[in-house]
Amino acid sequence: MELLTIVPVAGLASIIVAIYLYFYVKKQESGSPKMREIADAIKIGANAYLKRQYKTLAIFVGVMSIILAIFLNINVALAYLLGSASSALAGFFGMASALKTNVRTANAAKKGLNNAFPIAFYGGAVMGLSIVGLALIGISVLYYIYGDLNVILGFSFGASALALFAKAGGGIYTKTADIGADLVGKVELGIPEDDPRNPAVIADNVGDNVGDVAGMGSDLIDSYIASIVAAMILGTVAYGATGAMLPLLLGALGIIASIVGMFFVKVKGNNPGAALNRGTFSTCFIFAALALALVYFLGINLNVFYATLAGLVAGIVIGITTDFFTSIDRGPVKKTAESAKTGAAITILSGFSYGIISAVPPIIGISVATIVAWSFAGVFGIAISAVGMLSVVGMIISADAYGPIVDNSRGIAEQAKLGKAVLDITDKLDAAGNTAKAVTKGFAIGAAALTVLALFAAYAEIVDIKILDLMNPYVIVGVFIGAMMPPVLSALLILSVGKNAFRMVEEVRRQFKETKGLVQGKAKPDYARCVDIAAKGALKELMLPSILSIAVTIAVGLTLGKYALGGYLGGSIFTGIIFALFMANAGGTWDNAKKYIESGKFGGKGSEAHKAAVVGDTVGDPFKDTAGPSINTLITVMSLTASMFAPLIVAYALMV
Amino acid sequence: MELLTIVPVAGLASIIVAIYLYFYVKKQESGSPKMREIADAIKIGANAYLKRQYKTLAIFVGVMSIILAIFLNINVALAYLLGSASSALAGFFGMASALKTNVRTANAAKKGLNNAFPIAFYGGAVMGLSIVGLALIGISVLYYIYGDLNVILGFSFGASALALFAKAGGGIYTKTADIGADLVGKVELGIPEDDPRNPAVIADNVGDNVGDVAGMGSDLIDSYIASIVAAMILGTVAYGATGAMLPLLLGALGIIASIVGMFFVKVKGNNPGAALNRGTFSTCFIFAALALALVYFLGINLNVFYATLAGLVAGIVIGITTDFFTSIDRGPVKKTAESAKTGAAITILSGFSYGIISAVPPIIGISVATIVAWSFAGVFGIAISAVGMLSVVGMIISADAYGPIVDNSRGIAEQAKLGKAVLDITDKLDAAGNTAKAVTKGFAIGAAALTVLALFAAYAEIVDIKILDLMNPYVIVGVFIGAMMPPVLSALLILSVGKNAFRMVEEVRRQFKETKGLVQGKAKPDYARCVDIAAKGALKELMLPSILSIAVTIAVGLTLGKYALGGYLGGSIFTGIIFALFMANAGGTWDNAKKYIESGKFGGKGSEAHKAAVVGDTVGDPFKDTAGPSINTLITVMSLTASMFAPLIVAYALMV
Repeated sequence: MELLTIVPVAGLASIIVAIYLYFYVKKQESGSPKMREIADAIKIGANAYLKRQYKTLAIFVGVMSIILAIFLNINVALAYLLGSASSALAGFFGMASALKTNVRTANAAKKGLNNAFPIAFYGGAVMGLSIVGLALIGISVLYYIYGDLNVILGFSFGASALALFAKAGGGIYTKTADIGADLVGKVELGIPEDDPRNPAVIADNVGDNVGDVAGMGSDLIDSYIASIVAAMILGTVAYGATGAMLPLLLGALGIIASIVGMFFVKVKGNNPGAALNRGTFSTCFIFAALALALVYFLGINLNVFYATLAGLVAGIVIGITTDFFTSIDRGPVKKTAESAKTGAAITILSGFSYGIISAVPPIIGISVATIVAWSFAGVFGIAISAVGMLSVVGMIISADAYGPIVDNSRGIAEQAKLGKAVLDITDKLDAAGNTAKAVTKGFAIGAAALTVLALFAAYAEIVDIKILDLMNPYVIVGVFIGAMMPPVLSALLILSVGKNAFRMVEEVRRQFKETKGLVQGKAKPDYARCVDIAAKGALKELMLPSILSIAVTIAVGLTLGKYALGGYLGGSIFTGIIFALFMANAGGTWDNAKKYIESGKFGGKGSEAHKAAVVGDTVGDPFKDTAGPSINTLITVMSLTASMFAPLIVAYALMV
Repeated sequence: MELLTIVPVAGLASIIVAIYLYFYVKKQESGSPKMREIADAIKIGANAYLKRQYKTLAIFVGVMSIILAIFLNINVALAYLLGSASSALAGFFGMASALKTNVRTANAAKKGLNNAFPIAFYGGAVMGLSIVGLALIGISVLYYIYGDLNVILGFSFGASALALFAKAGGGIYTKTADIGADLVGKVELGIPEDDPRNPAVIADNVGDNVGDVAGMGSDLIDSYIASIVAAMILGTVAYGATGAMLPLLLGALGIIASIVGMFFVKVKGNNPGAALNRGTFSTCFIFAALALALVYFLGINLNVFYATLAGLVAGIVIGITTDFFTSIDRGPVKKTAESAKTGAAITILSGFSYGIISAVPPIIGISVATIVAWSFAGVFGIAISAVGMLSVVGMIISADAYGPIVDNSRGIAEQAKLGKAVLDITDKLDAAGNTAKAVTKGFAIGAAALTVLALFAAYAEIVDIKILDLMNPYVIVGVFIGAMMPPVLSALLILSVGKNAFRMVEEVRRQFKETKGLVQGKAKPDYARCVDIAAKGALKELMLPSILSIAVTIAVGLTLGKYALGGYLGGSIFTGIIFALFMANAGGTWDNAKKYIESGKFGGKGSEAHKAAVVGDTVGDPFKDTAGPSINTLITVMSLTASMFAPLIVAYALMV
């Protein structure tokens, strides 16, 4: 038990490094007044969104915690509040860092790549380290105080609530703003992209930050916490108290590995992408070595270590194979781009099909990891392999947050007209983000899959299901209903984007009509109102899918019983992973097909093929930025709901 | 056993009635020389396609039967040959009738609705009755000779092979021709739809017959035979020889009910749609009464009858609720049409989302039917409820085949310029087809789902799986792989349409370029070549998904074992039903959204909204006419493969 003190200590160390990096970034020069003006507008908009999101979240979390206090107990409710609050705090801090980093990276790019890169990376690392640190402190302190894994489940549930708001809400917001800005500005009035006359332009820029920076970290951390809880539950069964401690200790080692791994992120030979990947791979190696030592020291069967290793290897393999389908220089993207010559319909059909086929390699990777991890250490092996992958999440989120930051830097450099030399550097930085993303995405997918499988096993453990027979009609019906959930929730989110975009379009049209001199550039638009409309609508639309993911879960449990609910969770995993992969990759394929054409192929920008590719890209946007990334969080919420409400379900279900 | 003689007798009666109706239709007048010319062109094209299809099928079936003879036994191989040959024969006969009926219905429409309707209906009934009759004779004779259910499985597998060619091959063919004709004719040269100068126009008309008439029956009959085999296997376990006989006897009663039910198909008050539904409902009632008597007479538990009833009721409920989402005067279609105002992308997103959501009511219907049927009579209950629904398939196919026949009549009336009065009547006949389709589609969906569930249970019975534990990693991985199959096979089929359409486009362009005077209407195009290219390509593209559905099934069984294969079959059912529903309904929504706009809403024909809706419709075409309808057959093939190769899998699998 004394050994456990290294867990909050590691968490604290992580936060201290994050604060140090934050001030390192802050003391860099923030460039010309023009640059600061652009950055400030984005900052004000992002903060406006976050303020509204946190307000709505507070109400949602407040109501939920009362429900939890009434139906379960007060400690779970408190842990739930703590989970959402600490995730929200970390997200806010990370976002604040990102909003400072973008303009400073752009400014440093004037002095060259080697000056700009570390600022961007360290700015992103603030998000990665602070979120992991707070999560680990929260879990370990709660475990120390209560020693009750149900309370930890509450903490995890709270983090998931935030993730849902950040991913789904942020996803609806960012696409609303995007479509609203484009439809009226570009299509109806013919003014260029990112034009300051467009009232929705700030909302659009804000969206990139809200969806990508604040949203991404929350998704991985959601899996991170859930995997630790699941592993603690299954570990207790397998190895008693030592088994419960192991996931926490692995988390602490992961933080150490991540901090050390960051020293390996140094640009060599003008290749920042390789630097990021070197950081990830070094972190994995260091973590693997430390994990081996820990397992040996604790006297746990070495097979547990091999299970951990299986997850790490699967993550890397999945990342590399998945990359094939969305890479701009590979067959699927090129063929989709070529099909754009025959119009939008075939472009859609092509991207749709490749999106589905692209799910095959990661599904095989997940299958192999599942069997290998299980063969070494049973269901605990699956849980611990998820923990293994996610322990290095501090590094993963850092490398991932880098992407949208340099994307923003590029935008600022362009709008502030910093010249071609600077743009070349920001372009290179931007491309590096995509290289890193291939590997980090593999980790995110593999880890999410293994985590929900572990949660599934943890649920079975909690409700005492020894065998879940797929020949039982209640289980079959449970799987049917569960399998419907991810596609239906995706569909609702996509429809939300459409509805919310309508509201936005009306507001933009109204401003152009009522504000004299706006089109001529003589009057300033009301940016804040657009930000507010997009935010308000996004948070409103988010409610139905969020409530469904909780309510249907409880309803299935109470009416059809615990076995059906087990089937339901299984079903949600099967289609959830397929849809998450399909939507993310189809979106990526369309996006890159458009970029491929814009690089001058098949007629280039402005050609009929380009117009068709733009339709594909617009279809893909809510796929890859709204629905796809939300699915994982929704499944996690469903699994956690089932486990938390298990006592009620077992006691009051109509069917056994 | 003597009672069983009524089965082939009923089958024979069915065929005799079919032949009688064929000659009834044939002796009607076939109209003016112009009408006959159009009808002949379609007939020649359809026969050319069928000839090529049967040739390819013969090779495929030949190779497969050798494989079956080597790895299983010669009797199974012979039954396989018989199954595919008798289905092919029935399909050919039904098609011949349809090709005679279309022009005769158009001609009779000159004399009014009441003259035209019976011709169209009886022409379609030829398909329904002949296919059911041949299937029932085949099964009962084989059962009489061999008394071995493995041989009947072979027969079912043969019928599925034909269904695969008819649905998937026909589906690729018809969409290839459609896209090829439109892209060059309408888009590039601006000549109107159905213009005889377009070399692909006959291929397009042929496609409607090939895909809809020949394809549709084969799908239902595939489920019909498979449900009987599954019920015989499970019935033997539950009730011995009586249990094996029951499905066959129910089939015989279904034929009697269908023939009697056809007398109720009389137009009253100018409403042919109600006449078709009256026929379906009467058939169901008569069948239910006969089934009750049979179960009582055989001394089987009455619960088995209630299980049968559950299927019938579910079919009707599913049909009515599903209709809501694709009806032209309901919310989803109207909203999708409205979203077309903002362009193609939102149209796609809207139809996609409603397509997914539309799967919810039928999934609930299937779930309720599953639980009710099982509660009454266990897994045999599920099988027998599928048999119950499919026993009336003679009537269902008849009401269903009516649709494309009158659609063709309408086309002939228009091209032969028969005037507005006749067109009004053919329009009314056409609308009736859609009304009937709502109910028949409900039957097809519900029956297919229950059938594959029954096959799944039959597989478990054959390989002696008592419990299929969803907590076992091999089962989980099996479900993962199985769940991937329907989406991946759909994606391959959709890509095939794109590839084949390219070939077609090139040929049409070549003819316009090389044939002097073609654009001016002075030279005749080479229709046959287009038909041939579309057919050749379709049959070539069909191979990969067909072989995968068999090969992956065997590979999973041999590498991961019988439990994983059970999970695999389960997984294929879960996503298969979702994707089949989603694709069919999304396609229907887009189709009707386009029609809604063409009726003058949101700017009407030629508006920007209409262009966007056309993109939606083109995306929906391969969804609803190629991939969607093929999924059910593909799952059936997978299930039958698993059951047939079970002895090999049990003996040689790497894992238990």
